[in-house]
Amino acid sequence: MFSDVKYVCMGGTPKRMEKFAYYIMNEIGCKLPAGTTLLDISYQSYRYSMYKVGPVLCLSHGMGIPSVGILLHEIIKLMYHAKCKDPIFFRLGTCGGIGIEGGNLVVSESAVDGLLQPFLELPVLGKLQRKPAILDKKLAYDLKKIQQLDDPFTITVGKTMCTYDFYEGQGRLDGAFCNFTETDKLAFLRKIHEENVVNMEMESLCFAALCHQAGIRGAVICVTLLNRLDGDQVTASKETLNEWQEYPQQLVARYIKKNMTHR
Amino acid sequence: MFSDVKYVCMGGTPKRMEKFAYYIMNEIGCKLPAGTTLLDISYQSYRYSMYKVGPVLCLSHGMGIPSVGILLHEIIKLMYHAKCKDPIFFRLGTCGGIGIEGGNLVVSESAVDGLLQPFLELPVLGKLQRKPAILDKKLAYDLKKIQQLDDPFTITVGKTMCTYDFYEGQGRLDGAFCNFTETDKLAFLRKIHEENVVNMEMESLCFAALCHQAGIRGAVICVTLLNRLDGDQVTASKETLNEWQEYPQQLVARYIKKNMTHR
Repeated sequence: MFSDVKYVCMGGTPKRMEKFAYYIMNEIGCKLPAGTTLLDISYQSYRYSMYKVGPVLCLSHGMGIPSVGILLHEIIKLMYHAKCKDPIFFRLGTCGGIGIEGGNLVVSESAVDGLLQPFLELPVLGKLQRKPAILDKKLAYDLKKIQQLDDPFTITVGKTMCTYDFYEGQGRLDGAFCNFTETDKLAFLRKIHEENVVNMEMESLCFAALCHQAGIRGAVICVTLLNRLDGDQVTASKETLNEWQEYPQQLVARYIKKNMTHR
Repeated sequence: MFSDVKYVCMGGTPKRMEKFAYYIMNEIGCKLPAGTTLLDISYQSYRYSMYKVGPVLCLSHGMGIPSVGILLHEIIKLMYHAKCKDPIFFRLGTCGGIGIEGGNLVVSESAVDGLLQPFLELPVLGKLQRKPAILDKKLAYDLKKIQQLDDPFTITVGKTMCTYDFYEGQGRLDGAFCNFTETDKLAFLRKIHEENVVNMEMESLCFAALCHQAGIRGAVICVTLLNRLDGDQVTASKETLNEWQEYPQQLVARYIKKNMTHR
């Protein structure tokens, strides 16, 4: 059932990935038999959602490193047992931009943790293990290259900071707790921006580390929901946000369409 | 809308927490108007599920520390703004037992990370911050005390190891990667068992740390799905697992019923 998978696309919520499944189905010209709908193949687990559209597998990974980590272990095993040939993994997400306004795309060149370390650090049998968080640079720049003149978004390739917490971990002042000031926050954001960090999210470090360890080409494409240098809260309307969340899908669909015939 | 909340119950999946909402509704004798159903109050966010049944708020928190962390920040803020008086937080989950057979309950006395450290370590503005992962011991032992002679489960109060990864992080050999042996694994599990670790899961450290920091009494009640000293894979049938997952719900419902009249 899975041996023809060439592209594995994952994102946070089941709803967004269901939408992507229907979108990519239309884009690559797959057709469902009359009267049928796409099935959430893993609906009985209640943990993740999974849809298969021809060579494209669409998955939800939940929020944060542990959640995406479990999924990646399972999908990497699945690809191995199904003997898939050289699949490409994409994470399509949302992020906070650092120096980039809301509604633009960031393709991660590499991922770092909250201390700017370029690896996933994980206790294994009581000892810290480090996995390098390396992404495929050629793939990242190939994604940037397919930008079109009439796209409503810019595409920046840069470093992504991946955190374990959305509030204090990303220097937000509006969580349940906060022991720093607006000035401290801005000094930190400006400092990491100088180190070429252009966005913050919560999964890229693990995605990069596990793809790299498995020898799988991977790319992280996120749309910025705000420029964190301007504030902590997302102020765009629900409609605008829904539109923005389609931008990573549009770019990845364009890449898949362009490459399907050549593979 | 939330000012009468006394008990906040959270667990991994939306489905399990929806079931719990209906179960607790029946147990505490809440009634819905004819022809209505419980509403997932946060269905538009697609991130978490939330049901309110009288003084009980039922929530799904997804998998892992980052996911439960975001939820806790938001619920702690909600409790504060709604002026809730001394709410109790429960996490109802599943876990691997260490020296405990599948189908039994563990109430966490405290939580430790994969290095046996009793705190949540989090990079904040580029520096590691430590939050003590302390749970309410009286609450834990109160939960143990309401065990009944005809319960199909035992209740153990002990230390819980909370990990960032389900496979390598919990010493499993059956993930996509593994660089240790069965002998290494068993030596590690026996070592932590000697330190009074009786189970492993993926949220307690953050749950304990944020509840403690907010001054909220919290308890973690998990059912064991297997004894990790015997293996890595859950072998019980789907029906048995569904039955086991009701045990934490039964214990917490019993506690709430017993205490509702006294508060």
